[in-house]
Amino acid sequence: MNPKLRVTVWGENVHEKKNKTVAAVYPKGMHGCIADALQQDSQLDVRTATLDQPEHGLTKAVLESTDVLTWWGHMAHGEVQDEIVDRVQERVLQGMGLIVLHSAHYAKIFKRLLGTTCSLTWREAGETERLWVCNPGHPIAQGIDRYFEIEQEEMYGEPFAIPNPDEIVFISWFRGGEVFRSGCTFKRGNGKIFYFRPGHEMYPTYHNPTVQRILRNAVAWARPDGKWIDTCPNVPVEKAPEKITERGPHMHKPGEAGYR
Amino acid sequence: MNPKLRVTVWGENVHEKKNKTVAAVYPKGMHGCIADALQQDSQLDVRTATLDQPEHGLTKAVLESTDVLTWWGHMAHGEVQDEIVDRVQERVLQGMGLIVLHSAHYAKIFKRLLGTTCSLTWREAGETERLWVCNPGHPIAQGIDRYFEIEQEEMYGEPFAIPNPDEIVFISWFRGGEVFRSGCTFKRGNGKIFYFRPGHEMYPTYHNPTVQRILRNAVAWARPDGKWIDTCPNVPVEKAPEKITERGPHMHKPGEAGYR
Amino acid sequence: MNPKLRVTVWGENVHEKKNKTVAAVYPKGMHGCIADALQQDSQLDVRTATLDQPEHGLTKAVLESTDVLTWWGHMAHGEVQDEIVDRVQERVLQGMGLIVLHSAHYAKIFKRLLGTTCSLTWREAGETERLWVCNPGHPIAQGIDRYFEIEQEEMYGEPFAIPNPDEIVFISWFRGGEVFRSGCTFKRGNGKIFYFRPGHEMYPTYHNPTVQRILRNAVAWARPDGKWIDTCPNVPVEKAPEKITERGPHMHKPGEAGYR
Amino acid sequence: MNPKLRVTVWGENVHEKKNKTVAAVYPKGMHGCIADALQQDSQLDVRTATLDQPEHGLTKAVLESTDVLTWWGHMAHGEVQDEIVDRVQERVLQGMGLIVLHSAHYAKIFKRLLGTTCSLTWREAGETERLWVCNPGHPIAQGIDRYFEIEQEEMYGEPFAIPNPDEIVFISWFRGGEVFRSGCTFKRGNGKIFYFRPGHEMYPTYHNPTVQRILRNAVAWARPDGKWIDTCPNVPVEKAPEKITERGPHMHKPGEAGYR
Repeated sequence: MNPKLRVTVWGENVHEKKNKTVAAVYPKGMHGCIADALQQDSQLDVRTATLDQPEHGLTKAVLESTDVLTWWGHMAHGEVQDEIVDRVQERVLQGMGLIVLHSAHYAKIFKRLLGTTCSLTWREAGETERLWVCNPGHPIAQGIDRYFEIEQEEMYGEPFAIPNPDEIVFISWFRGGEVFRSGCTFKRGNGKIFYFRPGHEMYPTYHNPTVQRILRNAVAWARPDGKWIDTCPNVPVEKAPEKITERGPHMHKPGEAGYR
Repeated sequence: MNPKLRVTVWGENVHEKKNKTVAAVYPKGMHGCIADALQQDSQLDVRTATLDQPEHGLTKAVLESTDVLTWWGHMAHGEVQDEIVDRVQERVLQGMGLIVLHSAHYAKIFKRLLGTTCSLTWREAGETERLWVCNPGHPIAQGIDRYFEIEQEEMYGEPFAIPNPDEIVFISWFRGGEVFRSGCTFKRGNGKIFYFRPGHEMYPTYHNPTVQRILRNAVAWARPDGKWIDTCPNVPVEKAPEKITERGPHMHKPGEAGYR
Repeated sequence: MNPKLRVTVWGENVHEKKNKTVAAVYPKGMHGCIADALQQDSQLDVRTATLDQPEHGLTKAVLESTDVLTWWGHMAHGEVQDEIVDRVQERVLQGMGLIVLHSAHYAKIFKRLLGTTCSLTWREAGETERLWVCNPGHPIAQGIDRYFEIEQEEMYGEPFAIPNPDEIVFISWFRGGEVFRSGCTFKRGNGKIFYFRPGHEMYPTYHNPTVQRILRNAVAWARPDGKWIDTCPNVPVEKAPEKITERGPHMHKPGEAGYR
Repeated sequence: MNPKLRVTVWGENVHEKKNKTVAAVYPKGMHGCIADALQQDSQLDVRTATLDQPEHGLTKAVLESTDVLTWWGHMAHGEVQDEIVDRVQERVLQGMGLIVLHSAHYAKIFKRLLGTTCSLTWREAGETERLWVCNPGHPIAQGIDRYFEIEQEEMYGEPFAIPNPDEIVFISWFRGGEVFRSGCTFKRGNGKIFYFRPGHEMYPTYHNPTVQRILRNAVAWARPDGKWIDTCPNVPVEKAPEKITERGPHMHKPGEAGYR
């Protein structure tokens, strides 16, 4: 009787149309590959949405019926409408989980929720990445050995300009000499957020079974605990928990909403 | 030879012109009162800036020469230009301290840096507030007894929709029955942020010597440790710390900047 | 096919035998009352253990088969054997959840896991406590209104000498004028820890349906995500992920364990 | 008129007497080398203490006059008397800074303050370590470039079994393929704690100018903000901030201390 978790996989879907290498690696689009990986878990009900759809596929109805949203974007961050970013942020604060993938460290929604630049250093050289589990009991690391390797990946290096994460699940070692906090959790409002580093569009990273396992773990971890819509209510004097008498001058008239 | 700390006190300065009670309580403006309080510390070099000035008084030159910025706003949050908010955010991430006061929990810059709604419950009844020190060794609480009281204040109640603070310095008790996390610290980029709850415009809160002491403590605490301008550099293969050979396909051309 | 969560309710069970008031309020012991409250959730498999049993009822076999342990103690903290505290700590670090109740803020196991004195201020005057939810989406607060009241409780006041909690779920308001962080979460190793303030032995707090609901929520929240036994392994040169050659002098002989 | 910061450098000083390599690298002892490095800062007043002295050189008088304590230990952790550990912990909670070095991750005082096993993986192969700054504005990283290298070091690898640090200043890359959170800050009570990874006894790490710079930075960062001695006071009914009347039964007699 446990209803399925409703997941929406958002993909920018631009590289796939413009670049033959990307198209060959991800014939169904990167979002299609990620959705297939998630669908292997029968407890997940998965659909996709892309930038080129009306409202980027993220209508109020879609978001309202999404428990966890995954987000991959890169060259078209600037084309995502602010109104849609507002809408996604609102849902995260209410409790929707958000999985932010690779180059989406620069997505508007990620910078909006974290408040920092989210910058990093980078190199595209197809070098080996080794991800170490530094939090072995974490739900997102279940079933993963002490480390795993990705033969070819883009390098992302520290400093990663984010607020201190709530938890660090993975740290990466790169052949070229850098390190990176590759799996980080945050909470904003009621929403759980997981940033996961791997996933350069030129390489078959999302076909990697270990990466797919982590995506499924992350989606399950990010499921909402409940829903909370904050309303900033005025509490009139007569409804104060303790009986008090109003004193002194007023700025606000009775029943007036506060300034926002 | 220790140079003075350069503080800019930003005030919305609208209530003071429109409301006789506020004007009577703060004849020099709320920003003027706060600036006077800070100026009692001879190590501080204090100036003010207000909404109605060009660029809200926060030109690039002013911000560049500001170590710590204090911010009070209420009814005109919406009139603060986004370009100025961008500019303040950039300086905070570089290391400028930010003290956010009372109703500025809804200021654009605070919501921008925290990523949440920053909402709360409220009541304007002139009730007594008692602030407890819950972190007695914290620099911001130095010289403050176990608690202090403000005879008349607006009530702010939990839930306060912020990310979990790095530290909680004060928690408030209100006569009407509510509680609130009234002194919270955050770090974003290199910048230290302190939110301090008291300061309703209708009451003489910023004339209170204990409140003034806390403002001076907070400004000293928020002083920059250094300056960091993040640039998201590409690290070319030949500059990798370890010698590696480039492999596989490329999305980016040599020397190209990444997508933002 | 979801197996039940195995809960052990530990009670000091000394006041109940020595004090007629406590015995009258809790005829089955405080642990008996708490166990009954938990047993209302059919997903929980609940047993009890007390100080006067061999090994305080916390044998290796009992702890090995415990998913979540609840702990109430007060006047006999010093009688808990250090060997049993070691054993409980080990299981928490492996992943066993721990719910620490009221005066157990001074329990050896709580101080051991947090590293601080865990002190606070207090008053036994039967005053009203009002607990505010400051994290409305948290699993432990599910089904709880904006606040709830306990007619008669002991007062605990700030400063509460704990490390900064991961999350604050409840903050208390006391009629006598104090505040307290009454619901705090921590993680140590793989174990989730929840401290919950109410529960003075002289009052019927654990008969309160809202308190009972929170206990059930907390136990469910603290369930293990997995089990991790850390072993501090030596990684011999020939098993390094990257091929390296040993260089320089040695302190340790091959195969030798490190110093602890 | 700014008084000097009083630093005590604690050294186990056992390897230096038993092993010729260590004695040759550190003819004045490791503690002597560290003390010399700190003494380069004229604002520091530095002395040393070692295991073999009465009370391990950490008498009440010494600790009372210490602002920051540094700690290096390895093979003799078990010989440190619990009474001295209690004493050091008490001073840290009051505000004394603590710098924990390399193999002292297993020191009793570190495990006591963190509550976890503090285990890790390790390899002694004289491999290259590269430490990346991941928090470039942090006081401890001032004057350090994007990264620095140590030609020969012991490897420590993740998972490092510590609670989530307040801040991560450095992450290490090892030639053999591992990563490690090498510079971590914590706060316990009023005391600031910094763990710094490098410093294997067989190599000249503490002669490295960059390492020495970090040690000086760390000591300055850990300086006490104030002193707080917690006393867990009972607040009698007549001294409650709000006037209340005592109600209901009592466990404690007036003036009685609480149970610890």
